[in-house]
Amino acid sequence: MRDQVCTRRKNPWTVKTSRSIYDNPWIAVREHEVVTPGGGDGIYGVVGFKNVALGVLPLFSNGDTVLVGQWRFALDCYSWELPEGGGRLGGDPVEEARRELSEETGLQAGAWREILRMDLSNSVSDEQAIGYLAMDLTQGAPHPDEDESLEIRRLPFKTALRMAIQGEITDAITVAMLLRAHHMAVEGDIEPALARAMILGGGETP
Amino acid sequence: MRDQVCTRRKNPWTVKTSRSIYDNPWIAVREHEVVTPGGGDGIYGVVGFKNVALGVLPLFSNGDTVLVGQWRFALDCYSWELPEGGGRLGGDPVEEARRELSEETGLQAGAWREILRMDLSNSVSDEQAIGYLAMDLTQGAPHPDEDESLEIRRLPFKTALRMAIQGEITDAITVAMLLRAHHMAVEGDIEPALARAMILGGGETP
Repeated sequence: MRDQVCTRRKNPWTVKTSRSIYDNPWIAVREHEVVTPGGGDGIYGVVGFKNVALGVLPLFSNGDTVLVGQWRFALDCYSWELPEGGGRLGGDPVEEARRELSEETGLQAGAWREILRMDLSNSVSDEQAIGYLAMDLTQGAPHPDEDESLEIRRLPFKTALRMAIQGEITDAITVAMLLRAHHMAVEGDIEPALARAMILGGGETP
Repeated sequence: MRDQVCTRRKNPWTVKTSRSIYDNPWIAVREHEVVTPGGGDGIYGVVGFKNVALGVLPLFSNGDTVLVGQWRFALDCYSWELPEGGGRLGGDPVEEARRELSEETGLQAGAWREILRMDLSNSVSDEQAIGYLAMDLTQGAPHPDEDESLEIRRLPFKTALRMAIQGEITDAITVAMLLRAHHMAVEGDIEPALARAMILGGGETP
């Protein structure tokens, strides 16, 4: 969709000069001298991402999902999130998501469905996220990256959604994907027995 | 909530050295030499944000909302979004959101309600977003920043939500807020007549 939207408009910014500020394996920062849409001179610092952010919402037939807990260095804070990771730009995102889910949780999914695309922070960066629903799950052994220190927690989808609503989950991909899955369950876009388990909370007592 | 979650855990990263890479009025980039949770040496580039991202979902009593269209320099693409802007860290976010809504759309809202907090891109940045529902709306004259070139479009909430689902809206704050408002309407967390107008599409023919 993005290409279609882009080609219908003319870029109102003019770039006079650009310079590279910083580069590491994950991001490249550039500063541009610009003329703004209003005609004024300015600068624009842009953070370019070398990976696409992939999120996976594993959904068991009883309405459970899985969260991953980890310390987020950039926030200086612990964070509970859906399984996520970086996929190579130009790679096959669903294959990368499959690898990420398996590494972090040991789960293999027989059914994959793209449910979300987002630009995460478009005032400064070009980081894109793609979210998948993963169903038909079988459990294998996780094999996380040795630089990661992860906790894995299986819980009812309804509980995860409540954590997002109450501010205990704040990761944007996770919040949006949980809400999107709720929307799908309510709109009849997920198989009725599973949708019911998601909304009612599966085996949980109310 | 974030403080509570943070204090229950120990940071598994060690920072050996830190240096400033880049600084402008909106972001500051730092690179840290670290020891990872797995014990390996590494670097971590972090983009610190000088503002909090504020999003506003204006909701008219007939179920309409308002989108703002603008060219996003960092994406090199046009983007339709809810009214958004940066608020000073340490400022009163609802006052900053009120100012942003008025500047971009001319709307004044009598009722404000926080509906979402998210960390937008926590693998690299500390950028936080806060989303508000704005109701009891009255129309005044917009007075946008002269560096901005904005289009304003009033449309049924249901149509905006469909745009997000179909990938015509990709801004993360907008996608998450539209889904959150849908969740509220379905869960009985919005006044019934308004919730009905949001879900059914107001005056729109199906």
